[in-house]
Amino acid sequence: MKTAGIVGLGLMGGSLARDLAAAGWRVLAADRDPAAERAATDAGVVDGPLDAAAVDALVLAVPVRSAEACLQALAPTLRPDAVVTDLGSTKRSVLRAAAGLGLAPRFVGAHPLAGHHQSGWSASRTGLFRGAPVFICPGGATPEAVERTESLWRSVGAVPRRIPAAEHDHRLARVSQLPQVAATALAATLSRDGIAPPDLGPGGRDATRLAASDPTVWTDILLDCADEVGPAIDGLVRELERIRDAIGRADAAAVAGALDEGRRWILGGSATS
Amino acid sequence: MKTAGIVGLGLMGGSLARDLAAAGWRVLAADRDPAAERAATDAGVVDGPLDAAAVDALVLAVPVRSAEACLQALAPTLRPDAVVTDLGSTKRSVLRAAAGLGLAPRFVGAHPLAGHHQSGWSASRTGLFRGAPVFICPGGATPEAVERTESLWRSVGAVPRRIPAAEHDHRLARVSQLPQVAATALAATLSRDGIAPPDLGPGGRDATRLAASDPTVWTDILLDCADEVGPAIDGLVRELERIRDAIGRADAAAVAGALDEGRRWILGGSATS
Repeated sequence: MKTAGIVGLGLMGGSLARDLAAAGWRVLAADRDPAAERAATDAGVVDGPLDAAAVDALVLAVPVRSAEACLQALAPTLRPDAVVTDLGSTKRSVLRAAAGLGLAPRFVGAHPLAGHHQSGWSASRTGLFRGAPVFICPGGATPEAVERTESLWRSVGAVPRRIPAAEHDHRLARVSQLPQVAATALAATLSRDGIAPPDLGPGGRDATRLAASDPTVWTDILLDCADEVGPAIDGLVRELERIRDAIGRADAAAVAGALDEGRRWILGGSATS
Repeated sequence: MKTAGIVGLGLMGGSLARDLAAAGWRVLAADRDPAAERAATDAGVVDGPLDAAAVDALVLAVPVRSAEACLQALAPTLRPDAVVTDLGSTKRSVLRAAAGLGLAPRFVGAHPLAGHHQSGWSASRTGLFRGAPVFICPGGATPEAVERTESLWRSVGAVPRRIPAAEHDHRLARVSQLPQVAATALAATLSRDGIAPPDLGPGGRDATRLAASDPTVWTDILLDCADEVGPAIDGLVRELERIRDAIGRADAAAVAGALDEGRRWILGGSATS
């Protein structure tokens, strides 16, 4: 039986712990909240406290800017044959941190596209990763380490998709961070204008749902890819101003063109890579 | 048996036709698309072509900037005791148009908050309005006309909520039009950056879903309340720039503050009116 060590038992780490345990792994885990550790142990998911010397695979499921400190703390006791991976939404910084600690050959960055607006152990569930794409950023890892990491993800039903870290961070700033920022800004605007969530229709609820996401997790993500998410927000502002100007000058063709462009995109789109 | 006349058999008009027929009304209807008229008749929902002289209640379910032309065409043959209402997302302009045609005493503006991103007769369904708030803007209508209109809406399960037209248009520019514009702008931004919808996770799909809305309907709505939706978009742009600046200067407290504000709003909100 292989042993996985998981740091962080939130939505993502907790769900991975559940699925790995169900897939036959022994799971050791640590969380800064003792109540989450207890709950995961009581649920029969976690077998005991994290012991880095005992694991075949170490998984960091912590806010992205805490990953380096975790690696520093655990690297000294890791077995030489253990692989290390993570679940963070940004990949360049954690690969840099792992390389700085001499872990490059066995650190394989991973990012499952399965998060949502709930958070914490109580939001974790089995099957969260089933069918979900998981981005794999090999960095300087050995082919064997990459294969072992992909195998771990396949064992919980995720679909590995290799991508260089820089390309990952560029794309995810648009795919994931930009919708988060848009929902947060929309919620703040409505809040300032005296609108409450129950005032919204189904469409408005969809558009603001992500505003409920965990602020700690997302502050880290946004700051960690500021160079990518900044220009992405600028692009969104430009689109909003284009539509606003068309409305202001009563340019029906331009307003219809913008609406039509969005509609064709969402109804016609196929994956770009 | 009372008779309703419905102009427009799209998502909203078609769904209202289904529910009124099920509630015991005789429904006469017109649509610019003969195929929609045939489908609604074949489905046993519509009893025959629209005859304004035969209806107790006339309902306009057309894009908001077509409402005036419909009223002009139908007003001369309407029975003096017929009430007239609509389903449009803006209310000041249609009330003005009705007043200009001498229909003020029996025109009652209505706006059920039940639309979504699908459109056309094929998207219509029974029960669309069940439990949905329906804004009622009496304008210059008689109390009897208001009561009869509210009774029509109650017969399909909607919950009438009286509101002056100006207040309606101010609030709805935020509750409904702003989320639509945000989703459209987000879709256009992602499209320009080479992202396709299947690249998105569940949160990104939520945030862009409204981009699929009918461009014809929404061009009318946005232009018809330009004075309200313009400032609402400006407010959203300001929020985006505030978050973008906080990210740019790596101000973790400000980024967390913005995320936290959105989260508290969406998790804590109760209706404001």
